[in-house]
Amino acid sequence: MKLMFVIVRDTDSSEVLQVLVENNFRVTRVASTGGFLRRGNVTLMLGVEEEKIQAVIDLLRQACCPPEDIQHRATIFVVDMPYYEQI
Amino acid sequence: MKLMFVIVRDTDSSEVLQVLVENNFRVTRVASTGGFLRRGNVTLMLGVEEEKIQAVIDLLRQACCPPEDIQHRATIFVVDMPYYEQI
Amino acid sequence: MKLMFVIVRDTDSSEVLQVLVENNFRVTRVASTGGFLRRGNVTLMLGVEEEKIQAVIDLLRQACCPPEDIQHRATIFVVDMPYYEQI
Repeated sequence: MKLMFVIVRDTDSSEVLQVLVENNFRVTRVASTGGFLRRGNVTLMLGVEEEKIQAVIDLLRQACCPPEDIQHRATIFVVDMPYYEQI
Repeated sequence: MKLMFVIVRDTDSSEVLQVLVENNFRVTRVASTGGFLRRGNVTLMLGVEEEKIQAVIDLLRQACCPPEDIQHRATIFVVDMPYYEQI
Repeated sequence: MKLMFVIVRDTDSSEVLQVLVENNFRVTRVASTGGFLRRGNVTLMLGVEEEKIQAVIDLLRQACCPPEDIQHRATIFVVDMPYYEQI
């Protein structure tokens, strides 16, 4: 399993969440801000099987509006997760 | 060291925090929401020695009420942490 | 790449953010609390090249006031990040 952290703009977060949940990804959402100006964004945390990471990234491309300036649609951090459990 | 992310329901978070702190775990707490309905939950972050992960999970089982429906008591993500420092 | 989580006190967070951004680190900021007393702190998330981790730690030492009691200036968690992308 991998643990993904995905940072998207506030304005895209509802659409992103809806698309991920519709595709059966379980997502935890944390309000966050970016940079010194504290531009509002959202950090999503997902436990994902390795072979589904690309599917998540494809959904993010669909659900996020094209960035207007030097921003990106999304920033994606993926780390190995040797242990995952739901109790 | 390992880095644990633990997601518990809002309603269990005070009890979970108390039990973890009483057992000398240092915990950082972040407000979060789960899924599309944005059900309130809490994400805890702990740096834990590998041999103490099971103790944390046992404490979570104690401190979280049994889930009422298809929810779980807690979702536990554990990742390797090659570097840890307090300055 | 490495993924750093840095926890600093509320009162230091503006200075820390300013210094990191001035040094071209991209930072995501999450409001958090520590311990059972829920002392206010801030969790920062940064994707950083391995050779720059020490620079981040040096900047944290500069930007955070010396701790008054048993607290630390900052808690630093670093994990391996095999995959990183901005889309």
